[in-house]
Amino acid sequence: MTAARANVRDRPRVARGTGKQGEETISAVACHIFRERGYHATSMRAIASALGMQPAALYYYYPGKEELLFSIMDTAVEALTSYVETHIDPEATAPERLRQAITAHVTAIAYHLDELSVFLHEMKSLSPKRRELIQAKSNRYEHIFRDILHDGITSKQFNDVDPRLARFMVLAACNWIYNWYKPEGTYNPEDIAQAFGDMMLHGLLA
Amino acid sequence: MTAARANVRDRPRVARGTGKQGEETISAVACHIFRERGYHATSMRAIASALGMQPAALYYYYPGKEELLFSIMDTAVEALTSYVETHIDPEATAPERLRQAITAHVTAIAYHLDELSVFLHEMKSLSPKRRELIQAKSNRYEHIFRDILHDGITSKQFNDVDPRLARFMVLAACNWIYNWYKPEGTYNPEDIAQAFGDMMLHGLLA
Repeated sequence: MTAARANVRDRPRVARGTGKQGEETISAVACHIFRERGYHATSMRAIASALGMQPAALYYYYPGKEELLFSIMDTAVEALTSYVETHIDPEATAPERLRQAITAHVTAIAYHLDELSVFLHEMKSLSPKRRELIQAKSNRYEHIFRDILHDGITSKQFNDVDPRLARFMVLAACNWIYNWYKPEGTYNPEDIAQAFGDMMLHGLLA
Repeated sequence: MTAARANVRDRPRVARGTGKQGEETISAVACHIFRERGYHATSMRAIASALGMQPAALYYYYPGKEELLFSIMDTAVEALTSYVETHIDPEATAPERLRQAITAHVTAIAYHLDELSVFLHEMKSLSPKRRELIQAKSNRYEHIFRDILHDGITSKQFNDVDPRLARFMVLAACNWIYNWYKPEGTYNPEDIAQAFGDMMLHGLLA
C-alpha cells in the first residue's frame, strides 16, 4: 500500500501517464472521488476531468468504470492482507497477535481511508462475478482474525465466546472507523488501536 | 417502526394508495430497493414499477427521489431513537442500561434491516442541508449511549476508557450487523445482542 494520500486537489495531474505509474495515479484519484461521492454517482468523465485527461485516455487504461472499481478493491484487499500479515508475529500469544492484528487493521484504514472506504463500502456495486472474487479475498483476510480467535479460545487464553461473533465484533468496530475517522481530528490511529485493543481484550466493566 | 418485512415480491402491490398508508407502502418498497441496489443506482421509475404504479402517481407523494430518501431516513432515526429509549430502564445501573441499549439497537437493526441499512449506508447521498438534519437526529440518538458510558465511567462501574472511543466501538460493532446479518442465518438477534454485550462488558481475555 502506498503512503497516505492528501486531498485530491494537492495531487499531481497527469495528462498522460504511462503503464503502472499512470494506473496508480488514476486509481488514487478515482478512489478519492468514489469515496467522496459514491461509485454510482461518479462518471468516468468526472474522473478523467479530475485527472486533467480526456475520457478516451482514461478508457485506454480501464475499459469501464467497473473495471476501475474492481482494480481498486482488488489492490486494497491484497495490500491490506499482506500489511496485516507482516505485522503479526507468528510466535506471539493469541492475545498479543490479536492486538497486532487490530493495530495493523486500524492503522491501515486510517492511513488509507480512500482505498479502504471504497473496499468496505462499495462491494455491492460490483457485478456478481467480480464481487465473488473480491469476497473470496476478503474472506481470506478475515481468516487471519478467525485463526487468532480460534487459537485463543482453544488455548483458553480467551473466554469461551462464539468465534464468529467475536470476529464480527472485532472487525466491525475497526471497519467502522472509515465512517468517523478524520486525519485532522483528535485521535491518531495508534491511540485508537490501543484503546480498541484494551476495550476488546479487557472489556468495559471495571 | 412497523413489523419486520418479507421480500418485496411478497408485498401487496398498490396501484393507488391513499395518504399515510400509501406513503408507508411506497417507503417500504423503496427502502428495500435502495438497500439492494443502492440509492444512486435506483430510479423513481424502478420504484414505481415495483409498486405497480405509474411514475406520476409516485411523484404525487414525493416530489423527488431525495425527498423519498430523506423521509425514509427521518422515519428510521426517529423510530430507532424511541424504540431504544423505551427499552432502557432509567433506574438501572450503567452496565445494565448499556446491555439494554445494545440489545435494543441490535434487534432494531436485525428486524428492520431495510430501513436501518439505508439510514446507516446512505447518509452521504443526501444533500448537505438534509444531511445536517438527519445528522442532528443521529447525534441525539448516539447521546443515549454517550450518557450511559459517561455515567458508568464517572461511577467507576466502567474502566477509565475514552468515552467517545467506547461509544464508537459499541455502536460500530452493532451497526455493522447490517452488512452480515441474514434473517435465515445461524443467529437470532437476541443471541447476537447477548454475545456482543458479554464481549463488550467482560472482554475477550479469560
